[in-house]
Amino acid sequence: MDLKSFVLSKAEEARVGGRAIGKVSSEKKNSALIKMAAAVKKSAKALKRENAKDLAFGRGKGLSKALLDRLTLNDKRIHEMAEGLIEVAALPDPVGEITKMWQRPNGMTVGRMRVPIGVIGIIYESRPNVTADATSLCLKAGNAVILRGGSEAIHSNKAIVKILRDAAKAEGLLPGCVTYIDTPDRQAVMELLKLEGIVDLIIPRGGEGLIRAVTENSRIPVLKHYKGVCHVFVDRDADLAMAQDICFNAKVQRPGTCNAMETMLVDKPVAKAFLPTMIRRFKKAGVTIKGCAETRRIVSAIDTVQKEDYYDEYLDLILNVRVVKNIDEAMKHVAEYGSAHSEAIVTKDYAKGMRFLREVDSSAVFINVSTRFNDGFQFGLGAEIGISTDKIHARGPMGLEELTSTKFIVLGNGQLRE
Amino acid sequence: MDLKSFVLSKAEEARVGGRAIGKVSSEKKNSALIKMAAAVKKSAKALKRENAKDLAFGRGKGLSKALLDRLTLNDKRIHEMAEGLIEVAALPDPVGEITKMWQRPNGMTVGRMRVPIGVIGIIYESRPNVTADATSLCLKAGNAVILRGGSEAIHSNKAIVKILRDAAKAEGLLPGCVTYIDTPDRQAVMELLKLEGIVDLIIPRGGEGLIRAVTENSRIPVLKHYKGVCHVFVDRDADLAMAQDICFNAKVQRPGTCNAMETMLVDKPVAKAFLPTMIRRFKKAGVTIKGCAETRRIVSAIDTVQKEDYYDEYLDLILNVRVVKNIDEAMKHVAEYGSAHSEAIVTKDYAKGMRFLREVDSSAVFINVSTRFNDGFQFGLGAEIGISTDKIHARGPMGLEELTSTKFIVLGNGQLRE
Repeated sequence: MDLKSFVLSKAEEARVGGRAIGKVSSEKKNSALIKMAAAVKKSAKALKRENAKDLAFGRGKGLSKALLDRLTLNDKRIHEMAEGLIEVAALPDPVGEITKMWQRPNGMTVGRMRVPIGVIGIIYESRPNVTADATSLCLKAGNAVILRGGSEAIHSNKAIVKILRDAAKAEGLLPGCVTYIDTPDRQAVMELLKLEGIVDLIIPRGGEGLIRAVTENSRIPVLKHYKGVCHVFVDRDADLAMAQDICFNAKVQRPGTCNAMETMLVDKPVAKAFLPTMIRRFKKAGVTIKGCAETRRIVSAIDTVQKEDYYDEYLDLILNVRVVKNIDEAMKHVAEYGSAHSEAIVTKDYAKGMRFLREVDSSAVFINVSTRFNDGFQFGLGAEIGISTDKIHARGPMGLEELTSTKFIVLGNGQLRE
Repeated sequence: MDLKSFVLSKAEEARVGGRAIGKVSSEKKNSALIKMAAAVKKSAKALKRENAKDLAFGRGKGLSKALLDRLTLNDKRIHEMAEGLIEVAALPDPVGEITKMWQRPNGMTVGRMRVPIGVIGIIYESRPNVTADATSLCLKAGNAVILRGGSEAIHSNKAIVKILRDAAKAEGLLPGCVTYIDTPDRQAVMELLKLEGIVDLIIPRGGEGLIRAVTENSRIPVLKHYKGVCHVFVDRDADLAMAQDICFNAKVQRPGTCNAMETMLVDKPVAKAFLPTMIRRFKKAGVTIKGCAETRRIVSAIDTVQKEDYYDEYLDLILNVRVVKNIDEAMKHVAEYGSAHSEAIVTKDYAKGMRFLREVDSSAVFINVSTRFNDGFQFGLGAEIGISTDKIHARGPMGLEELTSTKFIVLGNGQLRE
């Protein structure tokens, strides 16, 4: 079979699986997820064996330590994978929810009902746990998933998929609801991206390069997450002690995440009072500071920030610091250099807080809270499949609701259009 | 300037216009729309003069009568265009609406606020009224619009755009909120479709060819409306008199619309009782019937329907009639041949009605109502920019809400992530 037909056959299998799972009861879907979790736990040994093949290959290929770490499945991670499946089973089923219903003057009732999207393609890189995490969310929302993981994780991914498919089958679901494109040929992704009308949505998960390549080549709608270049603005009317804690939390608590702060903007009138203690605290925590001219006038012995630095997502203990004239300059900076991910203002002033909230156009805007809270669990939405920096369909943390569509339902008694 | 730079400069102008209009009050937007309406009314003569140039050119090019009709601006249409602007001014402003707000255990409040999308590109064909209709909806939702109409309507479109821009300027808005790509070069659309990051959304309005070309070439998210191949299923438990009226209304009331019925599915046990009178009534109204073998056994002197006919959107007084074994075969037919636009069941049976409602995956599903009601005004949503047959972001009639995005807003008092 040629590659095109191969990918098409996988997608067709997913389509049939999707039609079936879209109509399955919550009970059955939950039961399948719990069976999957049990099977994952029971297969820890086999999973580690398959994973060892990927790790050996990766080492031979000279993958970095960080990449090898991401690739690794150990007992803890296998346990977490199983627990993740159980957690998704416990979430409310979004399918069939009627989000609104109203009466029209002619007596017909119109409503909006949540329905599955259909077939969702997930294209991801080295973490094999994505295989189970993404599958659980897609299935719970009544969708089939068609997975394409990184070639370096292929043994691990295939083993996980087999477990998930067998459990689905045992529950009476069509195994096509979990489909894996198991060829090392990189062109397979390009073939998948052409299957408009069979695959309904593509979610790429990984680095900027992967996401750009998918976006540029897809005929299918894509939900994506580019980088998180996040800001905290310390206003002149901030509680400076609170501002310190928020900025420290936003940068240091977990610097490798997309909602960590990359640039701290400080209002000029409080720069002298705020910066010395703050920067001392950062330095003590191992943060490298890159400051603007004004910052360097106030605090000595720090690097100079370059204009290009303001665009960077460091994902590391590095921080740009810029002193701004006022809130207008702060918001201008955010609009120019930010990635519309997460921005916070620290202020006691009502009007400025509300203005920042309204005018800053990011997936999440915070008053007096750390940007680190931009997260599905923290917002109370349950597990998430990523954080969308798109404006279409989903913005911010994407949970089960974002994996559904809606349809209009109309109940009448013979209404005719005049 | 080369084409690429030309299109880019237009898009940049729209981007700046969009940033500004996103923050403008409802009052100012409404006032601008009302000024636009007044200016359109006052400029009827000038508009007809420009339109005459397009019509003359079109006649010379040998455009069909139907196309020339669509292209025509007369007093009635100009008046309707102005009234449309006033109607949109009267709709509630979606921007700033907080759709939901909740408290988290740590005391922070999380909400979702509606925000403009940004810059919306509208690519359309010959109707010049789209220029004003699409602009009014985009502006009201706080977006800039970048318009690209058919080359055959360029004089009319440019004249309308000038009126709209002048009125925007008079209200103190940046004219960039209404931008027109005024070059006859067809490649301009391709350049526009590459401007990801500047243009946020593309809405093509026109025939299937246009929509496919846009979808295949766009790196920007596209909201589209393919064809409407709509069905009415007359169940064995239908009130047959009601079924007759609904089917007649769905086919005949305005056959050229996307929500008109193209295939009538009749449950076998009532076919003999239902079809003869129904088909007589259709024929009297000038409808050409294409029947399946069973239909032709019951009613003589009708054409045979071919399998390919079931995929056709006739937009005309032509109807496929098929007798099906039961509701399952009806739903299977809809899933196989339909375009997921509008489908209705006529039945007195509760369980079958509910099953059809739940299992048929179309943008609108009706019980005992004509499919012709799939429309923004009829659903009570106000003016619409089209009916989406997509599943992502918008499905069914797209009104002002569908021209917005949301962001998360978080109000706290110093919360830190642990």
